[in-house]
Amino acid sequence: MSAAPLDLSHHFSFVSKNRHLSDVKDFYKYYLIPGIANFAGGMPHPSYFPYDSLEASVARPQRLQPANSGDASPEKLIIPKDPQTTDPNLRIDLSSALQYGTAGGYPALLSFLRQFTRDHLHPNIPYAGGPDVIISCGNTDGLAKTIELFTNTWNADRDWIRQREGMLCEKFTYMNAVQTARPRGLNIVSVAMDGEGMLAAGKGGLADVLENWDFRRGRRPHLMYTVTIGQNPTGGVLSIERKKQIYALCQKYDIIIIEDEPYWNLQYPSAYEMEARCRGLACPPPPNFNANKKSSGYSFLDSLAPSYLSIDTEGRVVRLDTFSKTIAPGSRCGWITAQPAVIERITRITEVTTQQPSGFVQSVIAETILGQQGSKDAVRSSKLQPAHAWQLDGWVRWLEGLRGGYERRMKSMCTLLEDNKFLFSETSANSRNPLDFSADEWEVVDRVQMFDFVWPKAGMFTWIEMHFETHPLRSQYSQEVLSKALWVHLTKAPAKCLVGPGSMFAPTPESAVHAQRFLRLAFAPMDPEDVTSYTQRFIEGVKTFWQRKDLDGLDDKPMAMLSVKENPAINFLGLGC
Amino acid sequence: MSAAPLDLSHHFSFVSKNRHLSDVKDFYKYYLIPGIANFAGGMPHPSYFPYDSLEASVARPQRLQPANSGDASPEKLIIPKDPQTTDPNLRIDLSSALQYGTAGGYPALLSFLRQFTRDHLHPNIPYAGGPDVIISCGNTDGLAKTIELFTNTWNADRDWIRQREGMLCEKFTYMNAVQTARPRGLNIVSVAMDGEGMLAAGKGGLADVLENWDFRRGRRPHLMYTVTIGQNPTGGVLSIERKKQIYALCQKYDIIIIEDEPYWNLQYPSAYEMEARCRGLACPPPPNFNANKKSSGYSFLDSLAPSYLSIDTEGRVVRLDTFSKTIAPGSRCGWITAQPAVIERITRITEVTTQQPSGFVQSVIAETILGQQGSKDAVRSSKLQPAHAWQLDGWVRWLEGLRGGYERRMKSMCTLLEDNKFLFSETSANSRNPLDFSADEWEVVDRVQMFDFVWPKAGMFTWIEMHFETHPLRSQYSQEVLSKALWVHLTKAPAKCLVGPGSMFAPTPESAVHAQRFLRLAFAPMDPEDVTSYTQRFIEGVKTFWQRKDLDGLDDKPMAMLSVKENPAINFLGLGC
Repeated sequence: MSAAPLDLSHHFSFVSKNRHLSDVKDFYKYYLIPGIANFAGGMPHPSYFPYDSLEASVARPQRLQPANSGDASPEKLIIPKDPQTTDPNLRIDLSSALQYGTAGGYPALLSFLRQFTRDHLHPNIPYAGGPDVIISCGNTDGLAKTIELFTNTWNADRDWIRQREGMLCEKFTYMNAVQTARPRGLNIVSVAMDGEGMLAAGKGGLADVLENWDFRRGRRPHLMYTVTIGQNPTGGVLSIERKKQIYALCQKYDIIIIEDEPYWNLQYPSAYEMEARCRGLACPPPPNFNANKKSSGYSFLDSLAPSYLSIDTEGRVVRLDTFSKTIAPGSRCGWITAQPAVIERITRITEVTTQQPSGFVQSVIAETILGQQGSKDAVRSSKLQPAHAWQLDGWVRWLEGLRGGYERRMKSMCTLLEDNKFLFSETSANSRNPLDFSADEWEVVDRVQMFDFVWPKAGMFTWIEMHFETHPLRSQYSQEVLSKALWVHLTKAPAKCLVGPGSMFAPTPESAVHAQRFLRLAFAPMDPEDVTSYTQRFIEGVKTFWQRKDLDGLDDKPMAMLSVKENPAINFLGLGC
Repeated sequence: MSAAPLDLSHHFSFVSKNRHLSDVKDFYKYYLIPGIANFAGGMPHPSYFPYDSLEASVARPQRLQPANSGDASPEKLIIPKDPQTTDPNLRIDLSSALQYGTAGGYPALLSFLRQFTRDHLHPNIPYAGGPDVIISCGNTDGLAKTIELFTNTWNADRDWIRQREGMLCEKFTYMNAVQTARPRGLNIVSVAMDGEGMLAAGKGGLADVLENWDFRRGRRPHLMYTVTIGQNPTGGVLSIERKKQIYALCQKYDIIIIEDEPYWNLQYPSAYEMEARCRGLACPPPPNFNANKKSSGYSFLDSLAPSYLSIDTEGRVVRLDTFSKTIAPGSRCGWITAQPAVIERITRITEVTTQQPSGFVQSVIAETILGQQGSKDAVRSSKLQPAHAWQLDGWVRWLEGLRGGYERRMKSMCTLLEDNKFLFSETSANSRNPLDFSADEWEVVDRVQMFDFVWPKAGMFTWIEMHFETHPLRSQYSQEVLSKALWVHLTKAPAKCLVGPGSMFAPTPESAVHAQRFLRLAFAPMDPEDVTSYTQRFIEGVKTFWQRKDLDGLDDKPMAMLSVKENPAINFLGLGC
């Protein structure tokens, strides 16, 4: 029999411990008295909501390849003003979606997400009773609430260093997450990584960091922020073996794991094979993540690398999921999965901050997936002509289609990058007599490797390591100077490429030096037909940079360096994450 | 010439001072290079947003009385996938609304709110340059961010008492606001009030509290939370004269004012006259709030009591507005107005928490008010048949209509309450010979006042003071016991009324004792035809309570005391505020 999750309340911040059930919300329980004349609640009257119905043209889940190419025409989704059912977990209507609700989220969506999470996304969570979920306003919001729950602020001017708390993260990471934690005074502690993700063992790996913790820096970190699937920026997927090693260390040192997984469904098993084939290596066997485990019921979901939750015997994992990459970023809607006592505390935080995401987005997503589920008579008599809602099958099919769309972009980009890692020095090859060299020597002299990369196994990015040591100007300029100059060079015609500089993903001064060697290339936001031409421009840009005789003109500011204030068009060019 | 707002950064929390421009967002400025191949942003491709259009049936602004009763039929609102204009401040489309954006909010909605706030809602803000605005996820979120900006947490176990910060609020207040602040360790300090709102002078008034501050409790409060229009729970409207007195004290003691105004458009000037007429008092002249000031351009807006912002010479006011009461609570959308340096810091907080409200709600509200504003050709060629968007005139007309709807409920309730404040004791009148008494004595003996109230001048509530001292059992039971017993008595048949107990609105132990005397009756959530019958039931319930010979059975738990966990239907019974 599985054990209950651990009591982690010793990790709760004092502010979170101070939070009581909202006094106002305590009164919910009286609302159920039949026939009660309700003078208590401060709700507006629903007849004063100006919307009589909300409709959307929504794609069929088959719109996106792979599998049979489906009908591209949309179906009509209709959210009526009034409910078609009396079951609160099924009703999707504007009278309830646009009214005040409870902090957990809109019941129809919440109950779907709870079931999807427990039965399909993570069918093997080991602790007794399983997890609970709460709907968030996306993963940035989910992370902020989790950090609020598990950390006390620390002020260098007034607190003792021994009180300073810390957060572990990968050596290269999504900086918006770090920006959430660092202003609170937390130590940000980076852990070495490889192409997969965070290292458990070895120099700078998790065991090394924790065993050799220098308490003069503050408390040993009790929190970890990690992206294990399509790691941002590296595109790695952490193996279940590595996860077990890291989890064991988190048990030993009593660490909470915050698993931020916006890319979980964008996993590319084909990348393992492509990478091996391109490089003449033995092709690894396809990963079998879920052998001997309970199936999710879907071969697509079974093929995904499992969450830390699947080995979370003690309930120390808080997982963040979002609709940002599966529906749209502007949804600002996601969900948090953790042991019930943690979700309870996050619910208290939610009551006094966001309350819940907008009812517009919650009802639209609920309607898209679930549809009107009242009695057939009720739906018919309402004159609704409901679309065939996606249902669970359609939702999983949609996720699979999304994966396919991004996987094709990844392959286009990486195939081209793979073929162009080297600069062949034609001048020297032409100017010298090949007969002067042996075949081996000829190759050594005339090709230099400009960059290397690991094929992304998931996510939206390729993480490229520039080999500045092969640049002709390396003896004159530091790596830092070359790195910055390359970035500016790439923004200039004819390359005109905007790439993510590695420094954007360096959480600590130590990792910033190493990060100078890297660039992040997103393949997600571009049209599929642009991937090849854009990547070609990037490659040409790198080549011409390697052919430069000087760095003149590369310390200028790039053109059009306008601030958001100067041109609000920038508001539309969202960087997101 | 008006002066610039004061630098208030000495009030910013250390966490807020630590926040830098999000590293990621710094890169926006490069996005504008024409023809740039964008590898930098982690946005999904918009073709993978499953919605091709979003439509709603939206009321015409004339739907609600007063003024000419309009056409009740809705118009169709359509948000297309692609933009009809290249002007970022005008475009309303799913490609942009559902993409990542900047923390200020969706540009079309943000620019409308900025203009509405500066030119129409508060045309007389005195400081140079005027205020800025940021879109929030409703006022609970806006308040949480403001408190995060202006307060440091305080932990009794580790910090000095002299470091403890404090927040002033009215003696009776909206407790969800207090619940946001109190767990951070803030002193919650209540200020005496009358029917209008917070007192400046007199015992327990603001001057008294600040002048006689006991520093053994911590720092003198530097923050005030106040609802000045339709104060929750009392329904008061603070006069501009009182506001000037309080503002002067806030200048003297360097206090930030957080003005939470969800009810600003629900002001009932008629209540002044009705109250006076019912009570045989001289009718006060109608308030003229905006004499000699710049007009808002709308007589309805000019008739509203002005915000603290209108006298905010120093920029120490942070005002919270919400669509919760004007569109719908489930919008979870509002805006914050303050001097630009404060909005800038709140923007930094927003970047790492909510980012912005859902694009679904922002685009629907923007489309409702503004509509498609591309060139006529572009709109025509897109096959859109756009509704006549409300525009500013329609928006103001909608607000006025809402006010009318709630004002009628207020009048129905208060007229009935006014006529039934007294219990006439028939038994004693019948059993005694009237000739034994003089006319005056007769009245003294045979009628007792059960309650009194001030007519609400705005908002959604009537605040009723129970005169427990006239209850026959007063000698046997304390006020506290009678108060709780009354609340339970009211929930039982035949009254079956759920009312807000005064204790729900008491922020401090001292105010809790006084609060026992009060009940809050919301007239907003009920159907207009129910107001009279429900109020009648309430009155009968009070009468029968005053006729009770004992309190037997009133310490039972009311029936159907189910928790949210036991019955998720409660989720739909939102208490809101």
